Amino acid sequence: MPSYIVADIGGTQIRAACFRADSHTPERVERLATQSGVMPVLDRLYNLISVIWPQNDEVIGIALALPGPVDPFQGILFGAPNIPGWANLPLRRLMVERFHVPVVVGNDANLAALGEWKFGAGRGHHHLIYITVSTGIGGGVIINDELLLGSRGLAGEIGHITVMPNGPLCGCGQRGHLEAIASGPAIARWTEEQISQGAASTLSTQKRLSAKDVSRAAQQGDPLAISALERAGNYLGVAIAGYLHIFNPTAVILGGGVTQSGDFLLLPLRKALREHIMSPTFLENLTITTASLGDDVGLMGTLALAQTLRKA
Amino acid sequence: MPSYIVADIGGTQIRAACFRADSHTPERVERLATQSGVMPVLDRLYNLISVIWPQNDEVIGIALALPGPVDPFQGILFGAPNIPGWANLPLRRLMVERFHVPVVVGNDANLAALGEWKFGAGRGHHHLIYITVSTGIGGGVIINDELLLGSRGLAGEIGHITVMPNGPLCGCGQRGHLEAIASGPAIARWTEEQISQGAASTLSTQKRLSAKDVSRAAQQGDPLAISALERAGNYLGVAIAGYLHIFNPTAVILGGGVTQSGDFLLLPLRKALREHIMSPTFLENLTITTASLGDDVGLMGTLALAQTLRKA
Repeated sequence: MPSYIVADIGGTQIRAACFRADSHTPERVERLATQSGVMPVLDRLYNLISVIWPQNDEVIGIALALPGPVDPFQGILFGAPNIPGWANLPLRRLMVERFHVPVVVGNDANLAALGEWKFGAGRGHHHLIYITVSTGIGGGVIINDELLLGSRGLAGEIGHITVMPNGPLCGCGQRGHLEAIASGPAIARWTEEQISQGAASTLSTQKRLSAKDVSRAAQQGDPLAISALERAGNYLGVAIAGYLHIFNPTAVILGGGVTQSGDFLLLPLRKALREHIMSPTFLENLTITTASLGDDVGLMGTLALAQTLRKA
Repeated sequence: MPSYIVADIGGTQIRAACFRADSHTPERVERLATQSGVMPVLDRLYNLISVIWPQNDEVIGIALALPGPVDPFQGILFGAPNIPGWANLPLRRLMVERFHVPVVVGNDANLAALGEWKFGAGRGHHHLIYITVSTGIGGGVIINDELLLGSRGLAGEIGHITVMPNGPLCGCGQRGHLEAIASGPAIARWTEEQISQGAASTLSTQKRLSAKDVSRAAQQGDPLAISALERAGNYLGVAIAGYLHIFNPTAVILGGGVTQSGDFLLLPLRKALREHIMSPTFLENLTITTASLGDDVGLMGTLALAQTLRKA
C-alpha cells in the first residue's frame, strides 16, 4: 500500500508521521527537537524523514507544515519567527532533490484549518473559519471546500486586523491588531498591567504571568482574571463579527490553548458577536465550536494537504 | 444572434439593457424611476424588461442586480433598504414565471466587483478586492477568478467590520463599522460635528453638508475639510490592511463617489496601509486604483453575471 510522509515543523519540535494512502491513522509517528546541538534544522528534518520512510511501500509524496508565511505555489518558506536562519528557504526544491518524490508545503495555521475541516470539528461544512488563539492568533478559511490562499499563498492572516486603532504593539510590529489584544501573551500582559496599576487579584503575588495562570485564576473566581478573559473574548467577537460579514460561513472553529478557558472567553465572544453583527441572518445556521483534533491537528492538516497529491 | 437582458435595480432608478451574446456594448439601454406613481416596483420592472426585449432574437436569460442582501442560490432578495415592501422576494421564480427564460440575481456591490474584474480596472487579476465608498460602503471579493459568495450568498460585506469599537452608529444599527466612519454621510456628519464644536471652516455657513461639499472645500484648501477626508482615508487604510492580510490580493479597486476626492483620501489611505501592514510582502505587486467603469459598472457587472448562464 503506498504511503504519505507528513511533517509538522514547529519552533520547538518536529513531528513526522507516515500514513498509508487508505487510512488516516498513522502507521508511525516520530518527534525530534527542532533546534538542539550543532546539527542544522534542515539536516534534522532530513534525518527524521529518513527514519520514518517505509521499508517496502512506495511513498506518494511528502507534505510539510511550516511555522511562518509560505508561498505554497513555489514551495518557499519566507521566514519562521522561531527558527533563526530560516528565511526564503526553497523547501520544496530541497526536499525533492533529497527524496525524489513530489513535495507540497503549507503554513501551519492554514493547514490546521484544513485538518479541522477534513477530519475534525468542521466536517461537512463547505464554508468555515478556523481561528487558533495561543502565543499568536492565526487561522485559515475554507471557501467552497477550498483553502483560501490568495495570490502568493499569504492569505488567512486573520489575527492581524486592527480592532483597536493605536492599541498595543503586535508581534508583527504594528499596533492594535487582534493578536496584540486577545492572544495568550496579550491576556497575560494586560493582567500584569492592571496589577501594576493597583488592581486587586490573587495573581498579584506572581512575578511573570501566563494566559494559563489567568485562566486558572478565573476558574477560582478571581475578578481581574475574569475581566482579562472577558476583554479578550469581546475583541475576538468583534473581529469574528467582521469575518462573518466577509465570509458568511456556516462554522467558526476555535483552536489553540487560550480557547480552553471555555465560557470565560466564549460567553463574552458570543455577546460581542450579537452586538456587532449587521443582521441576525449571519448567525442563522452558524456553528461556533472548539476544535476537536487537539495536538493532532498539525499532522492531520498536513495529511489533508498530502492527499491533494493523489488527486493531482 | 441570441441576447442577454440585464437590469440594475437601485432605490431611485432601474436601468435595463440588452446585450448581444458576442458583445459588451449594449444594443439598447432604458431607464425608469424605481418608485413613482401607483404602479408597484415589480410591475415597473416587468414593463421595462418587456420594452427592451429584442424583437427577433432569442433571449439566453435575464440577470438582475439588486440593492440589498441576496441569496443568489435561491434567487431571493432578503430586503432592500431603499425599496419599501421588498423583503424576502423570490425574484428569480417570479421572473422565470413571467418571461420563461433562465434568471440569475446578485447583490449590486458584489456584481460591481465582478464588473470591474471582468471589464474594468481589475482585468487580468485573479485575486482582487473592490470597495465602493458612497452612501454606504460595500464591495466584493474575487478569489481565484470567482466571486466570493459564502454559504448563503451574503459574503463580501466589507463595509461592516469594526474599526473603532464603540464608535459612531452605522446604518446597519451597530457601532464603529467602517461604513459609520468613512462613507459619504459619515464624512459630512463628522465635519458638521466639528463645526458645531467650534472648528473653523469655510463650510461653517452651510446648513446641511454632503461629502461632495467637503471634497470641494478640501480642493479649495479648507483645513477642516482636508482633515475630514484624511480621517476617512486613514480608516479605509486600516480596514484595507486587514483585508490584504486576509485575502492577499494583487489589486484593490476603489469605486463610489467619495473616492473622487482623489489624493485627499488616497494619500492618507496609503499611509495607513503602510502603518498597519504586518509585512511589506503584502504590498509587493499590489495595484491600488480607482474603478474604471463609472456609472456603467452596474450594467457591466450584471452582464458578467448573465454570461455565466451561457457556460452553465
